[in-house]
Amino acid sequence: MFEKKLRLVDLYDFYGKMLTDKQNEIMDLYCNMDLSLGEISENLSISRQAVHDTIKRTDKALEKIEDQLGLYKRYISRQNDFNEILRLIEAFRKDHNETHIDQIEQIATKQVE
Amino acid sequence: MFEKKLRLVDLYDFYGKMLTDKQNEIMDLYCNMDLSLGEISENLSISRQAVHDTIKRTDKALEKIEDQLGLYKRYISRQNDFNEILRLIEAFRKDHNETHIDQIEQIATKQVE
Repeated sequence: MFEKKLRLVDLYDFYGKMLTDKQNEIMDLYCNMDLSLGEISENLSISRQAVHDTIKRTDKALEKIEDQLGLYKRYISRQNDFNEILRLIEAFRKDHNETHIDQIEQIATKQVE
Repeated sequence: MFEKKLRLVDLYDFYGKMLTDKQNEIMDLYCNMDLSLGEISENLSISRQAVHDTIKRTDKALEKIEDQLGLYKRYISRQNDFNEILRLIEAFRKDHNETHIDQIEQIATKQVE
């Protein structure tokens, strides 16, 4: 559940600008302000069910955009590469084996090709 | 002119899936097959002017999506970081000064934060 929300927050960060104003109003409170459905319902004077339905529909819309563009997937892959670079630097600092530097070079080269 | 086309090719790679089938048909020939306007006109049996207008309109549409999402800009910034990492590795191999490794760590840390 928590992972699912994290993904939604990220997809909203990526593609939120393509949503309608109404969707954005609710998603901003849900994703950026981290309000609960009940709190959003109270804030906007709409039913909790309407908030729930909008978030569900918007989630689907964002997933559809990601299905088409796949830019979030690309982003995650690059994040993993940067994390791997950090791991390799730590390993290098421990054993001063330059193979780790070669591996960093391979990762960076693959990304700029 | 060449730089402008490069940017269009990249934006098409990023956001092409959001275009119409008709736009995609022409942009694929222009960006991926690298055909000239005249060649596309001949291939699709439409006027050179129609090809020109479609490419111009599509260019505007892609720039508008990038204005909203800015994901290509983010991508370019990460590419620059990977290039900088490669430069720092080269420098490290020359002088074995570990400051270069620290700088790589800073770049990677900034990206995963």
